[in-house]
This record gives sequence, structure tokens and C-alpha cells, in this order.
Amino acid sequence: METQLLFEICQMLNDIRVTKPLVHHITNYVTVCDCANITLAIGASPIMADDLGEAADIAAISSALVLNIGTLNARTIESMLAAGTKANEAGIPVVLDPVGAGASTLRNRTTKTLLDRVRFRVIRGNMSEIRYIAGLGATVKGVDASEADFTGDSRADAGIAKALAAKYDCVVAVTGATDIIAARDGAVCLENGHPMLSTVSGTGCMCSSLVGSFCGVAKNFHSAAAAGVLCMSIAGETAFERAGGLGPGSFHAALFDEIAKINPETILERAKIHEA
Amino acid sequence: METQLLFEICQMLNDIRVTKPLVHHITNYVTVCDCANITLAIGASPIMADDLGEAADIAAISSALVLNIGTLNARTIESMLAAGTKANEAGIPVVLDPVGAGASTLRNRTTKTLLDRVRFRVIRGNMSEIRYIAGLGATVKGVDASEADFTGDSRADAGIAKALAAKYDCVVAVTGATDIIAARDGAVCLENGHPMLSTVSGTGCMCSSLVGSFCGVAKNFHSAAAAGVLCMSIAGETAFERAGGLGPGSFHAALFDEIAKINPETILERAKIHEA
Amino acid sequence: METQLLFEICQMLNDIRVTKPLVHHITNYVTVCDCANITLAIGASPIMADDLGEAADIAAISSALVLNIGTLNARTIESMLAAGTKANEAGIPVVLDPVGAGASTLRNRTTKTLLDRVRFRVIRGNMSEIRYIAGLGATVKGVDASEADFTGDSRADAGIAKALAAKYDCVVAVTGATDIIAARDGAVCLENGHPMLSTVSGTGCMCSSLVGSFCGVAKNFHSAAAAGVLCMSIAGETAFERAGGLGPGSFHAALFDEIAKINPETILERAKIHEA
Repeated sequence: METQLLFEICQMLNDIRVTKPLVHHITNYVTVCDCANITLAIGASPIMADDLGEAADIAAISSALVLNIGTLNARTIESMLAAGTKANEAGIPVVLDPVGAGASTLRNRTTKTLLDRVRFRVIRGNMSEIRYIAGLGATVKGVDASEADFTGDSRADAGIAKALAAKYDCVVAVTGATDIIAARDGAVCLENGHPMLSTVSGTGCMCSSLVGSFCGVAKNFHSAAAAGVLCMSIAGETAFERAGGLGPGSFHAALFDEIAKINPETILERAKIHEA
Repeated sequence: METQLLFEICQMLNDIRVTKPLVHHITNYVTVCDCANITLAIGASPIMADDLGEAADIAAISSALVLNIGTLNARTIESMLAAGTKANEAGIPVVLDPVGAGASTLRNRTTKTLLDRVRFRVIRGNMSEIRYIAGLGATVKGVDASEADFTGDSRADAGIAKALAAKYDCVVAVTGATDIIAARDGAVCLENGHPMLSTVSGTGCMCSSLVGSFCGVAKNFHSAAAAGVLCMSIAGETAFERAGGLGPGSFHAALFDEIAKINPETILERAKIHEA
Repeated sequence: METQLLFEICQMLNDIRVTKPLVHHITNYVTVCDCANITLAIGASPIMADDLGEAADIAAISSALVLNIGTLNARTIESMLAAGTKANEAGIPVVLDPVGAGASTLRNRTTKTLLDRVRFRVIRGNMSEIRYIAGLGATVKGVDASEADFTGDSRADAGIAKALAAKYDCVVAVTGATDIIAARDGAVCLENGHPMLSTVSGTGCMCSSLVGSFCGVAKNFHSAAAAGVLCMSIAGETAFERAGGLGPGSFHAALFDEIAKINPETILERAKIHEA
């Protein structure tokens, strides 16, 4: 099964570079530039458009839509709903990045409204966000995952992700030291990555942009979510090997280099995937 | 004629570094940080201010105004109109970057409104955007130029740009593999640049910021537009030579280094300018 | 006294890295990504949240709040007031970065409203902004300090800062070639830093984020303000030594590396502090 998944990932990577899918983002203004650049680096074409006057129009011409609530506001929440609804009508896959879910009533209510009114193909978050959405206790501390929210048992964590995937009939991707990509009926764990990824703001958001890019060419959204997470994690490893010793600023720039350079050989050589 | 133009460009570059013109931007939140940094790197002083409560006030104390519709919204459209109108009254040059014109009704309508109500000295866009504004068929795909929109015949493309320049009595700068800087009565082509410029989000926006910086000290806006585009293109070449092999993240950082370092010697040595 | 101050700074640096204080920012969209990354680099945890629907909630769970008016607008001004008021009630320290105060009526009025309604622990600005707030003549030119606003006499400048500190019962940190950290009853000067810090947009904003990070663990806000300013200045020196020769793009990336790497040894070795 892992071999089949890796084969699909390499195929989708090729498809992105040939077809350059347009990936519409309604996202936060903290990491938006990095999201655009990582989307370009993987080979897709980013467009950011958050006014209600065009959100649905832009969604309709895109191959995927990424909704990220990192700096949500009353205006952009409406745009997210309009773009998400339109994408659903048009059969365009939608990815949710519930940044900081659990940290404020506004984020909680918005996450619920989005999940009620838009069908997402993938939800990508950290364990604190995913636990919050799953209705479990979460020790949310801002937008970073709380260490207290990892059980340390990847089988137990995968169970939480699978249950949430079943509830919303989507893929749930939980990123952390071990990443979990769960569907209703199964989950894989990815053991790639590097701790320095948490020293750069927005590596989670960038990961969602990569998931969106893969969704833009995907037939199977579980594979697309795994592809996006795997590419980010491998880039974290190779960026660290090249520039990590210098510090987070150099590592940050190297991430884009490594995503642009990633290829099937690197993926097949480095991927550490196993069933959960 | 090319010699005279190069002489003017070198003179304006010197003037920017001596007088540090204030360049007001109402621009998108994707590339705004890069626009500020490229403006500083060339030697000018950026200010970003988009609230209706101050847009006209800030325009009035600036030496140039750049309006970029990359992530336009109802609020900032009003601010663009107020700042543009004020700049016109005060004789301050205004540059339009019609990001994604053709991609949505909102962008189309806003572009039309801005062109109707504000007098621009320079419009800088890619060929898809310029074709759209010129009322010609454009295969707009998000914010990146569609390859289908290049005729491959720079004389024909220059004709489109010149006609648009005549219509709005301004300079039209079309950036691409060959850049065209057109006025009503003539156009030049610039053959500088590097394909890696399209791997970084916002090199178009940054180019408009450079054009704005040159307009802040210019007597001749055709020369100012050529100067901004030429500096960006040459920086793309030298950044590639130094850091391009590493990938788009390293190339991106190198662009600011190269703009800060650009000088008359480099410009005279590298510029490839010819009449269209 | 300088020895005691340096000891406190080193202790607070350690505390930040152990407790990772959450630092809430309502800030401009130009440099927000850099503010998030510098906050992470020093060891704290950034959160950016500017909607009125959550600004007070997020402030309430944070260890410090940074209000930066760089791209203020009608919506975020209300959020700043709500977050600031809430932080005051909860005893959470608030830092003001009055970007461009003096440059427009909106900025002036907003600065006044914020100072009237929120108690700040630290105001950090350049000499033009501080002179404006102090009601003295200021030659404001956009968001950069005007050279005309330095008296060139650090004792006189410190007097201005001390008077303002007394008026608002807070610490006033004026950054420039010589930095002044003033309280009602005394001030220190820091002679660290590098001119290249002014070639990168947002080093002032990042400095305020560092001040906010130190305030998140501080007992003494004068020491916290000195700590943030000193770390930024020393990072400017070491970033220049490593990457400054390449230009502002490379220097910019190096700043994050150097902040992440800064430690008591570097601080004790490099700090140039004296009473004003």
C-alpha cells in the first residue's frame, strides 16, 4: 500500500508541474507571501482573493481552494463561505486550515460554520486544533500545538483523526513530530520532518498550500493530503541539511529552494510511511 | 536614442539615492513586504497606507503613488480612488499595477473605474492584463500571464501597448520575456531578465514599486518606466548568477541584494535595449 | 547599574525560552510575517488577531500585547482599543509602536486615542515619532525618522524621552544610531546596532515585537525594553558581520538566525550601555 501511495504522489507531482493548477487562497496576512511562494515552488499557480465581490468568481476558475482562518475577520469569513459554497457546486476541492481553532469564540464559531456549510476534502491542522474540532479536550495556546495534546501514542492519535474524518467525510491531516493522514477507513503515519519547521512561522499554512496544490490535480484526496505533508516534511529535512545550522532565517529561505527541487527520486529515497 | 535613455536612467538612479523619494503604495497584502523592501533597496522610502481616513493625506506628502489591485477589496478601492484623485490634483505621478485584470468582474470593473477617474503616468502589467485592458482577447489564468497571450512578435505586441498608451495618454510597460515600454509615439524593448523571476511571487509588483520609485524623481515617465523595469530585469540576471542555482528562496533574497548594489556601470554594461 | 541591567536581560532571555510567552500583535500587514518570525526566533510564541470579535479574547490569554499602527484602519483601531483595554484589566503589559505618528491626521488622532484610553508599559518609536508624541516639532517624512529630528546630543534627546515617559508613566524607547531607553527617573543609552538595520523594512516593528516578548516575562519594563532593543541591535551587528556584505536581502534573513542564536555570552560581550 505504501508503494502505491508513493507512486501516486510522484505522479501528482508531475501533474502539478505540467498543468500548473490555479490554487485560490483565502488566508491570513501573516504567512500569505510564503503560501504564494511555496505554491509556485511546487509548480502550481497561487491566487489570493478575499473580497466578497470576487471570492466566488475566483473560486470558480480555480483547481483548488484553501481556506485558512489564521487572521479571520468578519469580512473574510463571508468570503470564505461564498468561495467554499461555489467551489462545492463546481466540484472544486476545498482544504481547511483551522488555525488557532480553540483559541477564541470567533475561531470556534467560524470553524463550526465553515464545517456546517462547506464540504471540505481535507482538514489540515495541528493536534490541538484537530482535538478541538473533534470535541475533545485541547490545551490550546495560541496558534501553536500544545505538547499536552499529543498522547504520544500514534495509534490513539490516528483514531481521533479517523473519527473526525468519518464525521465530515473528508481526509484529516494532523501534522506534528509524526504526521497522520486519516480517512474514515484507514490512516498512514509519516515520520519525516525536522524540528526546525516549528521555528518558522507558517510552515503549517505552507503545508496546507501544498495540500491544496496536490488537490488541484488529485483523484484521491487522501493521497493528495499525504503528498502535501510529505513534501513539506522532506523539504524540512533537506533544508536543514543545507542551511539549518545557520538558523531559522536561512532555513526559511532554503525551504522554497528544496520544494522547487523535490522530485520522485528524493521522495522515494526519503519517505518514511507506515500504516497507523 | 538608447544612449540618451541609459544616461537618464543612471541620472535618475542617482537622484533616488540622494533624495530618497517617499513612495506611497496601496497594494496587496501578499507581496507588500517585498514591495517595501525593494523600494528601500533602490534607495527610496516606502509608505503603505490604505485607510480612507488617511490615503489622500499620505498621497499628498509623497513623491509617487503606486496602486496595485492584487488583493483589492471594497474598502481599499475607495482609498485608491481618493489617493489617486489627490495625487492628480497635486501633480504627483501615479502608477497602476492591474494585477489579475480579466480574472474577475470586480477586478475588471475596478480597473475601468480607476482608469476613468485617475490619470496614470504608467500602467505596468503582464501581457494578459494589458491585452484585457486594451479590450483584446486575453486568456487570463489567475494573476500570471498566459503564454497564449504573447504573439511572439514583439512588434505586434508593441503596437498593442502603444495604442493603449495613446488611449490613456500614459506609458504602458508590459513585462515578460521581452519587456515593452511604450508611449503614444514610440516604444523600446528590453531583452534583459531571467526566467527565475517568474518563480518568485511578486516580482511584477516589485517592478511596479521600482517604476514608482523612478517616477518619484522623473521628468520623463517613459524613461522612469524603462528604468524600473530594467533594474528589476538586470537584478534578475545578477541574482541568478549568484544564487539562482540554489532555488527560488535564495534567488528571492538575492534580488534585494542586487537592487541595492545596482549602479551605472552594471546598467551600461548589461542593458539590452532596442527600439520596438 | 549596567551590570545589574545586563544580568536581568540575560535572565529574561532564559525565561522567554523556557516559558514561550504568547505575544499578541495587532500590527501592520507590511512586516507582520517578520514580526511573527522574530518573535519565534527569540523563543516566544506570536499570535496575530485583529478582528473586534476576538481581539479582547486573544489579548486575555496572552502574556503581552503589541499595538502597531503601521497600516491602521478604522476596523483595526477599534480592535486595538478593545484588546488594549482588556489587557489593562488583566494586567497584561501593552507595547505601542506609533509607526508614522505625525504623518497623517488619522495616525495622530489614533495615537492620541490609544494613549488616552490604554495604559502602555512601553512606547517604542524613532525620534520623529517620539518628538511628535511629545508635542515637539517633528519633521515627519513617512515612516522613517527624519535626520533633522536628532539633536545629536544624546543627553538632550534623553530628556525628551524622560519627559514623555513621565507624562504617560511608561518606558519610552527611542531607536536610532544611539538608542535611548527612558523612564521617568532615568535613562540608558545603547550604542549597539548597525546602519544596515535601516535598509530592511520593519526592523523597528521587529524591535517592538522583541520588546513585547521580553515584556511577556518581565517584572521591570525598563529592563524589558532595553532587552528587546539590545537584542535587535546586537543581531544587526552579527548579521552584518556574517551576511551584510551581500546586501539587504541576505542581511534580512541573517537577522532571524542571529536572534535565534543570541545568548548571554554574546550579550555580555557586545553590549555598550551607559547612563544617559
